[in-house]
Amino acid sequence: MSDTSSAAAKSLPPAHPFDDDKLKEECGVFGVIGLAEAANFVALGLHALQHRGQEAGGIVCHDPEHGFNSARRFGYVRDNFTKTSVMETLPGPLAIGHVRYSTAGSKGAVIRDVQPFFGEFSMGGAAIAHNGNITNADALRKELIERGSIFQSSSDSECIIHLMARSLQRNIPERMEDALRRVEGAFSVVAMTRTKLMGVRDPHGVRPLVLGRLGDGWVLSSESCALDIIGAELVREIEPGEMVVISDGKVESSFPFRPRPSKFCIFEHVYFSRPDSIIGGKSVYETRRQIGVELARENPVDADMVCPVPDSGTPAAIGYSQESGIPYAMGIIRNQYMGRTFIEPTEQIRDMGVRLKLNVNRALIKGKRVILVDDSVVRGTTTRKIKDMFLDAGAAEVHFRIASPPTAWPCFYGVDTPEREKLLAATMSEDEMCEHLKVDSLKFISLDGLYRAVGEATGRKKDCPQYCDACFSGEYPVTPSDQVEKGFELKAAE
Amino acid sequence: MSDTSSAAAKSLPPAHPFDDDKLKEECGVFGVIGLAEAANFVALGLHALQHRGQEAGGIVCHDPEHGFNSARRFGYVRDNFTKTSVMETLPGPLAIGHVRYSTAGSKGAVIRDVQPFFGEFSMGGAAIAHNGNITNADALRKELIERGSIFQSSSDSECIIHLMARSLQRNIPERMEDALRRVEGAFSVVAMTRTKLMGVRDPHGVRPLVLGRLGDGWVLSSESCALDIIGAELVREIEPGEMVVISDGKVESSFPFRPRPSKFCIFEHVYFSRPDSIIGGKSVYETRRQIGVELARENPVDADMVCPVPDSGTPAAIGYSQESGIPYAMGIIRNQYMGRTFIEPTEQIRDMGVRLKLNVNRALIKGKRVILVDDSVVRGTTTRKIKDMFLDAGAAEVHFRIASPPTAWPCFYGVDTPEREKLLAATMSEDEMCEHLKVDSLKFISLDGLYRAVGEATGRKKDCPQYCDACFSGEYPVTPSDQVEKGFELKAAE
Amino acid sequence: MSDTSSAAAKSLPPAHPFDDDKLKEECGVFGVIGLAEAANFVALGLHALQHRGQEAGGIVCHDPEHGFNSARRFGYVRDNFTKTSVMETLPGPLAIGHVRYSTAGSKGAVIRDVQPFFGEFSMGGAAIAHNGNITNADALRKELIERGSIFQSSSDSECIIHLMARSLQRNIPERMEDALRRVEGAFSVVAMTRTKLMGVRDPHGVRPLVLGRLGDGWVLSSESCALDIIGAELVREIEPGEMVVISDGKVESSFPFRPRPSKFCIFEHVYFSRPDSIIGGKSVYETRRQIGVELARENPVDADMVCPVPDSGTPAAIGYSQESGIPYAMGIIRNQYMGRTFIEPTEQIRDMGVRLKLNVNRALIKGKRVILVDDSVVRGTTTRKIKDMFLDAGAAEVHFRIASPPTAWPCFYGVDTPEREKLLAATMSEDEMCEHLKVDSLKFISLDGLYRAVGEATGRKKDCPQYCDACFSGEYPVTPSDQVEKGFELKAAE
Amino acid sequence: MSDTSSAAAKSLPPAHPFDDDKLKEECGVFGVIGLAEAANFVALGLHALQHRGQEAGGIVCHDPEHGFNSARRFGYVRDNFTKTSVMETLPGPLAIGHVRYSTAGSKGAVIRDVQPFFGEFSMGGAAIAHNGNITNADALRKELIERGSIFQSSSDSECIIHLMARSLQRNIPERMEDALRRVEGAFSVVAMTRTKLMGVRDPHGVRPLVLGRLGDGWVLSSESCALDIIGAELVREIEPGEMVVISDGKVESSFPFRPRPSKFCIFEHVYFSRPDSIIGGKSVYETRRQIGVELARENPVDADMVCPVPDSGTPAAIGYSQESGIPYAMGIIRNQYMGRTFIEPTEQIRDMGVRLKLNVNRALIKGKRVILVDDSVVRGTTTRKIKDMFLDAGAAEVHFRIASPPTAWPCFYGVDTPEREKLLAATMSEDEMCEHLKVDSLKFISLDGLYRAVGEATGRKKDCPQYCDACFSGEYPVTPSDQVEKGFELKAAE
Repeated sequence: MSDTSSAAAKSLPPAHPFDDDKLKEECGVFGVIGLAEAANFVALGLHALQHRGQEAGGIVCHDPEHGFNSARRFGYVRDNFTKTSVMETLPGPLAIGHVRYSTAGSKGAVIRDVQPFFGEFSMGGAAIAHNGNITNADALRKELIERGSIFQSSSDSECIIHLMARSLQRNIPERMEDALRRVEGAFSVVAMTRTKLMGVRDPHGVRPLVLGRLGDGWVLSSESCALDIIGAELVREIEPGEMVVISDGKVESSFPFRPRPSKFCIFEHVYFSRPDSIIGGKSVYETRRQIGVELARENPVDADMVCPVPDSGTPAAIGYSQESGIPYAMGIIRNQYMGRTFIEPTEQIRDMGVRLKLNVNRALIKGKRVILVDDSVVRGTTTRKIKDMFLDAGAAEVHFRIASPPTAWPCFYGVDTPEREKLLAATMSEDEMCEHLKVDSLKFISLDGLYRAVGEATGRKKDCPQYCDACFSGEYPVTPSDQVEKGFELKAAE
Repeated sequence: MSDTSSAAAKSLPPAHPFDDDKLKEECGVFGVIGLAEAANFVALGLHALQHRGQEAGGIVCHDPEHGFNSARRFGYVRDNFTKTSVMETLPGPLAIGHVRYSTAGSKGAVIRDVQPFFGEFSMGGAAIAHNGNITNADALRKELIERGSIFQSSSDSECIIHLMARSLQRNIPERMEDALRRVEGAFSVVAMTRTKLMGVRDPHGVRPLVLGRLGDGWVLSSESCALDIIGAELVREIEPGEMVVISDGKVESSFPFRPRPSKFCIFEHVYFSRPDSIIGGKSVYETRRQIGVELARENPVDADMVCPVPDSGTPAAIGYSQESGIPYAMGIIRNQYMGRTFIEPTEQIRDMGVRLKLNVNRALIKGKRVILVDDSVVRGTTTRKIKDMFLDAGAAEVHFRIASPPTAWPCFYGVDTPEREKLLAATMSEDEMCEHLKVDSLKFISLDGLYRAVGEATGRKKDCPQYCDACFSGEYPVTPSDQVEKGFELKAAE
Repeated sequence: MSDTSSAAAKSLPPAHPFDDDKLKEECGVFGVIGLAEAANFVALGLHALQHRGQEAGGIVCHDPEHGFNSARRFGYVRDNFTKTSVMETLPGPLAIGHVRYSTAGSKGAVIRDVQPFFGEFSMGGAAIAHNGNITNADALRKELIERGSIFQSSSDSECIIHLMARSLQRNIPERMEDALRRVEGAFSVVAMTRTKLMGVRDPHGVRPLVLGRLGDGWVLSSESCALDIIGAELVREIEPGEMVVISDGKVESSFPFRPRPSKFCIFEHVYFSRPDSIIGGKSVYETRRQIGVELARENPVDADMVCPVPDSGTPAAIGYSQESGIPYAMGIIRNQYMGRTFIEPTEQIRDMGVRLKLNVNRALIKGKRVILVDDSVVRGTTTRKIKDMFLDAGAAEVHFRIASPPTAWPCFYGVDTPEREKLLAATMSEDEMCEHLKVDSLKFISLDGLYRAVGEATGRKKDCPQYCDACFSGEYPVTPSDQVEKGFELKAAE
Repeated sequence: MSDTSSAAAKSLPPAHPFDDDKLKEECGVFGVIGLAEAANFVALGLHALQHRGQEAGGIVCHDPEHGFNSARRFGYVRDNFTKTSVMETLPGPLAIGHVRYSTAGSKGAVIRDVQPFFGEFSMGGAAIAHNGNITNADALRKELIERGSIFQSSSDSECIIHLMARSLQRNIPERMEDALRRVEGAFSVVAMTRTKLMGVRDPHGVRPLVLGRLGDGWVLSSESCALDIIGAELVREIEPGEMVVISDGKVESSFPFRPRPSKFCIFEHVYFSRPDSIIGGKSVYETRRQIGVELARENPVDADMVCPVPDSGTPAAIGYSQESGIPYAMGIIRNQYMGRTFIEPTEQIRDMGVRLKLNVNRALIKGKRVILVDDSVVRGTTTRKIKDMFLDAGAAEVHFRIASPPTAWPCFYGVDTPEREKLLAATMSEDEMCEHLKVDSLKFISLDGLYRAVGEATGRKKDCPQYCDACFSGEYPVTPSDQVEKGFELKAAE
C-alpha cells in the first residue's frame, strides 16, 4: 500500500550530480554501545555514511529509564539528526542507525520503510538495520503473511524482524541467527536489544562492516571513515559469516552460518566506499589511484591533459596522469551548491540538465586534447552530455577512460541498478559504445586490471573469483531466486 | 516505543475552549462504497465528525487499478484532506476514514497510531477504523506477541487486525467476526476489503453508527450530521451487535455475537454528539433543550437572565429559559479565533487562561443575578474561572445549573476521562462542590431527570438501566478487565 | 509592484463562514505604554480585535536598550504573536500593533503592506498604525513621489509616515498633526515614538478608539473588548478630532483639527464591533438585541420559531423572539472547525459551499415555519443558499428578517465592500429582492428603526444624521475624492 | 530597526567548510534583456553566482502586461527560484537579480535588506542590484533622512535609489548617473527600468562585471561562469567607470565619471571568483595554478606529497606539484553533504568542528611529509585544526604554503572581513605565525609573486599598483570615510 503521509519526501533526490546515471549503494549502518548519548555518535556516523543513502535516515536507541526511542526522517542526517530538540528525545548508551537510498520493494517514499525496524517480542524489544538485499524476500514474505504476520513496510529487510518474532529460540541473538539462516542474499546487519549491540555479515561478506573502539565503547560501521568522524579507532573488519554480540564492554564472536567463499563487492573499491575509508588495510583512495595507473598502462593515448569527471573520477585521474606523465587539470568545475537537485524546476531549468551541476573550464580546454577519467558508464547519458560540453567549448579531442569494466549486469545485492536492457554495456561492445557516444576514444579497464589494482597480483581467478563482480561478469555468487521467479535470465553457462 | 517522527503534532491541541476540563470523545468513523472518488466524501464526513477527534485523521481507499492507498496526518481534516495534491492520491469508489483524539495506550503523538489500520492477508488486504475502546487489549496484545505478531502502534485497536491476520477463516468478513468475538469493550467499527464496506457495533451498542444512502452508494458514519454534509439520506442506525457487509450495492446484515442488553452511551446525548445529529429519531439539540427544561423543573432559582456557557451549554440554557420564563442572554462571548489554543505561549499569555477564549459581556451583566448553564463539571477548574469572571464584572449572583448528573467515574469505553481522583464529583457531594467553587448555587440534573429528557418517561430502570451511564453511576456494563488488573477498584455492590 | 515573498499568505482567508458575502472591517489598532513587556499586552489586545482583520498583524515596540523592534506576519495573532521565540524579540514598555483585513490599494498579500509603518526621522523613529481609509491617498502619493519619496507598500496609510518625514515641524507629535491635516477620510491612528504613545481620531470620529488604564500603564484600543482581555479598565472614548499624547504616565489631550459634526459608523453597532464591546456606555450586544426588538415591531410575521444565522445574527434573533413571543431555536448549527476555509480544495469539496460551514438542524425544523434573522444582505448569495438548505430539510415557510437597512452604497472609510453594482440593494427594491431570493418574506429594519435601536429616540435627523450611514443612505460625510476622480458617481442631490 | 519577520533565515549559514575563517565576497549581480521569461535565466545565472552570496537572493522583472514583479527569499537560489509556482509570478523579457552574503549595515537577516531595491519615480519604476560597498553611505543616509527620505533597509545600497528619487534629471539613466556621482567606494551595479537594462562599474573597477549575448538578448553578470550556464557568449568586460544602457537590442556605452586608475580586486583572482570564470581573457583556474607555480619557486620544501585544502586550494596545489615534481594527492576528503553547516547542533556535535566537514585520508598520509596548499590565512583557526588532524593521523611533517600574501588589512569594498585585530597577519610576522600555529613551516606567496602570477611580469608597481591589494598592503584606493569617521586608523604614510 502506498501511503502519502510523507509525500514531501519525494522532493529529496540524492546529491550526486549524475545520480540518474550511477549505480547507487542502498544503505549504510552504524551502531554504538557503551558511550553516553550514543545517538549523537550514531548521528555523526550516519553523516559520514550519507554517500551510502541520501533519501532517509533513522535512529533507535535504548536507555534503562526511558526504554526504546526512535526517530525516522526523510532527508539528510545533517538536517534531521543534529537539533537538540530531536537528539534529546534519543537518550541512552546504546543506539543504532541507518541511512538508505531506497529499498528493493518500494516506489514511493514512505516513512514506514525507513529503518531501523523495531519489534517487541515476549522477551523484550529488538531493532535491526540492514545493508544489502534479501534475494528470497518475496517468498519469505508470502510465507509469513500466510502464517498471520502483518507487514508494515514494503522493505525486504522487514522479513528479518518477522522471522525473529516467530523463532522458537529463547533469546534475541539466537532468534537473529535463526532468522538470518532463512535469508538468502547479501546482508550486513547491525542490531540491538536493551543491552546488546550485534553485528552480522552474510557468509560471502558481500557488504562491508567494521568494528571500532572509542574509550570504553564499541562501534559497528559500514565503513571506517565513519569511525574517524567520532574519533574511534578501527579495530578490524567483521569477517564474512561472522556474528558479534557486544555487551558489558565485551565482544563475543561466532560463525553461525555454513562457510562460503568470500565475495566482497569489488564495486565498493571502485565507487561506493568513500576514498578515505580503509578496506583490507588499504586506503580506498590509493586503490582508485592504482586503478588509474593500470588504466593508463592498458589504454594509453596521446593528449594535453587528464581531467577527472568530478568527484568520483578524481583519484583514478590522478593515477592516470602520474603513470602517463600527461598533466592533471580541472577541466570541469562542479557547482558546489548542487547539494540537491532543483525541486520542482520549471521546464526551462530542467532542460539545462548537467549545466546546472558542472561547467567546462572553457579558457583552459579550448583547442586541447583531453582525457576524461570517469568511474563507470551505466546508461551512458552523462558521458554523452559531458562530451558535448567539451566539444562546445572547443576541445580538439575527447578521450574517455573508465575506471571499471563495462557494467553489463544488474546487482541484486543491495545496489540500485537499472534493468539490464538499460545498461549500455549489456547491448554494445566497447567499440560500439565509442561510436554510439561519438567520442574520439573510449576504453574501460579490464577485469584483470581491476583485480590487479585492488591487490590481486595474479588477476581474477577464473573458477571462483575472489570478489563479487557480477555486475561486470554476470556470475552471481547467490542465485537471485525472487528475480529468477519473475523471469530474470541468468547468464548461460559457457 | 515512542517515535519522534511526528513530534510537531504535539502542538495541535484540540479546539474546544475548555478542553482541559471536558470529557473527550475519542473517535469518529466514516465509510463510503459505490461513489466515484469516495475519499472526497470521506474527507467531508470526517470534517463533520471533527468534534469526535481533533488530533489526527486518516483515510484508506481502494481502486481496482491503483490498489489500496492511504494518507494519515496530524491536524484538522480541513487542513489535510482537502488539497488536490493529497486527494488525487486517494482514488477509487471505496474508502474509510477515522478521526481521533488519542488512543488509550499512547502518550506522545505518533503517526503509526493514526487509524485506519491496514493488514495484508493471504486473501488480500483489509483496513479497519475503530471508535470505542477494547477493555481486554493488554491481555490480547500479550498473547499475540507471544505468538510472533509485531505491533506497530500503541493503539488498543491494532489487536483487531492481528486477530484477523491469525484467524483460520477463509474470507475477511468471517475473520473480522472471529476477531471481534475475542474483543471485550465498546466498539463501532468501519472496515473495508478490496470490494466490501463493513460496519459492526458491539453487542451493547455503546458507540453510535448509522447507515446512509447517497444515489447508488452506501455510507456508514458515527453520526447522522456527517450524512447531511454530503447530502446523503439517513437510512437507519446499525443495531447493537449487528454486522453489515455492503458490496455490489447490497447490504447484508447479520448478528454474530451473543445478544446483550442495549447500553447506548447516554453522554452522547449530553455532550459528545453534534446537536444537529439525530439519535433514536430525535434531534440531539431538542434532547438537550429538554434537559434544560427538566433542569429548570428540578432546580428553579430566581434570577435576571439565563446564560449558556458556550457553546455546549446553549441548548440546555434555551430550554431552561423557556421553562423558567427567565430571559435568555449571551452573558459570555466566545472569541471565534480560538480554533486552537495558543502554541508555545509566553508565560504571561498562558496566565491569561480562559480570558483568551471567553469574555464576559460586562455592560450586560453588571448588577444582575445570572444563571449559567453548562453541560458538565469534570475537574471544576473552568467553573471556578467563569464564576470569577462574572464576579469581577459585577454580577450580583452567580448560579450554576449543570445539564448532566455529577461525573464521578471514569469511562473505559472510548472516552478520555481524568483519573477518578481528579473528578470533582468523585470526592465531593453537590453541596460540597458548591461551597468549594464559591458560587451562589450549583445544581445538577438528576439521573432520573436525564433519563426523562432522553425520552424514558419512567426514568432510569434500577436493575438494568437502558443506557450506559457508568460515568455517573459507576455501573459498568462490561468489566474493564485490563484496568482491574492494574488496580482499578470497581464500585462496591450495594 | 507585486512581491511573491509572502505568497503563502494567499492561503489565509478570514474566518467568518460567509466572508464572501459580508462587509468587512479592515483594521484594528492597539497600543500600550508604561507596562513591562508591553508587546505581550499588545498581542493579547490584537487577539481580541482579530474580528477586525484576520489577514495579517504587526507589532512595533521600543526599549531604551534595544531600540525599536518589530514583527509582521500573515495569519492569526494566536499563531504568530504568542511564541516565546517571537515575543522575546519585542522587549520594552511601549508597543503598538495592528491587525488588518486588506488595504485599499493592494490585491496580493505582501508583507510590506502589513502595519505598523515605521520611519526614521532626524529626531528619531516613529511608528503608526491606522484604522480607516484615506480618501485622497492617490493624490497625496502622486505628490510625494514627485518630491522624491519612495513608497514601500501599496497601502494608503503609508502617506502619513511620508508626510511626517517631510514636515518642517521639530517634534514628532507636531509632525503627525501636520501630516493628518493633509489627510482626508476616516482615521483612528495609534502611533509611537521612543517615549510617547499617541492616539488620534479624525474630526468626524468615523472609526472607534478608546482609552484604557491598567496599573500605571495606559492603553489605546479600537474597542473596549480588548481592554477586558488584559484586565484594563475603560477610561473613556477618544473624542472625534481629538489627539492624545501619553508619556511619563500623563495623558495630554488636544483638538488639532477644524471641528466637524460627529459621524460615527453606525455599522459598528450592527456588525463590526464585538458584542461584548461597549460603545457610548452601552453593550453592543444589547443594542443588537434592541435592533431585533425594533425589527419585530416593524415586521411581524406568524411562525413556529426564530433562528439566528450564526454567529452575527444571534443577538437580534434573541430580541426578535422576546418581542414577538415566538420561541428562539438553533435551526442552524455551525461547524466549529471552520476557523479557516479549506485550503486549495478539490472541486468536489468547493462545490459543497456553505454545507462545509453550516448544517440545518433537520429534525428540528421539518414542517415548521421559520424566521431567520441575519445582520445584513450584501450580495445575497448566502441568503439564497440558506433558504435552499431549509427547504431541502423540509421547512414549511422561510422568512428572513434583516437587522440592518438595505446596503446600497459602498463604504470608502475603511470597510471592504463590493463594487456598487454587486450590492443586491443597489439594483432591487425590498420586494424585488424577496422575489429574487424566492423566500416567503424578506424584511429589513428601517433606517429610523435602526437609529431608535442605537438610542436616538427621535430617529434619524434628515439634514445632518447623527451617524455615518452612507452605506444605507448614500450620504457621504467626506467626499471620496480619489473615487470620484476614478468615476464613482455620488448620489444625485434630491 | 530589527525585524523578526524573517528570523528563520538565521539558520542558513553559507556553504563553505571554513566560512568562519575566510574572507567572503558579499554579492553577485545578474541581468537579462530581450529573452522570453528572462527571470528563468536570471535564476540560473544567480545559481552560478551563488558562491558570491549564499544568504539570500532576489529577482525583479518587468512585463508590459503585468508591470514590475519581484520575489526575495532567504536561502539558496536552487531552493527558491526554481519552482514553477514562484517563477510563473515573474513574467517578462527583462529581469535583474542579486545574491548576497550580508550587507555592511545589518546584523540580523531581514527580508527588507534583500536586493534588488525598487523605487517608483514619477517617470516610472526602477530596480537596482549592487555588488560592492559605499564608503560614504553613513553620511549620505544622514543627509537623505534630514530631507525626508524614509529608509526601509539597513543596506548601504539603498542610498542609491533614494538619491535617484531626488535627482532633478528627467530620465532614469541620467538619475542613476546623478546618484552614482555622489557615491564613493566600490560598485558594480545592474539596474532596470520598464524598458532598459543598465550596468555600471565604479571608476576604479574594483568589482567585476561582464557583458554577454544570447540570441537577440543581452546579459550582464558579475562573472563569466554565469554566462556559460545559460549558454550565453562572453562579449567583453564592462570597463571601469563605464555605464551601459541596453534597450531595443542595442548597447549604448558612456563614461560618466572622472577617470581613475584601474584597481581591480586582486583577491577575485585568488579566491572570490569561480575557477571556471574568465578574467582579462584568462581562466581563473589557470591563474591560480600559476600562483601555485610561483609559490613553489619562492618557497620550496622537500616532502612526499602536495595536498590541497579543499576546495579552494586545489588549483594552486596542482601548480605547486607540477613545479616542484612532488606528487599531488588527496590528503583531505571533503564530506560532500556539508552543503550547509548543521542547524542548531547539539553541543557534542558542534565540538566535532571541522571533522564534520573534512576527514584526513589516514592510510595515505601516515608517516609522510605533507605540503598543504591553502588559498589564504585569515584568523588562522582552520589552519591550526587541519594541522592537528594531520598530526593525529600520523603525518611526519606538515608544511603550509599559502596562495596569497598575509591578509593584514580589512576590505571596505564589498567583502566581509573580520576586524583588523582579528586578522592573524595584522599582529604577527610570517615566522611568528608559523610558531603560533606549530607547523613545520608556513610560507606565503609574496605580493610580487602574486602580481607575476596574474600576469604582471614586472611585479607590483610601487607607487600606483595595478590592482586593489589593500587587504595585503593597507593601501586603500578610495578612502573609507565612514570608517575613518568611526575611528579606523589608516596605515601611516611611509
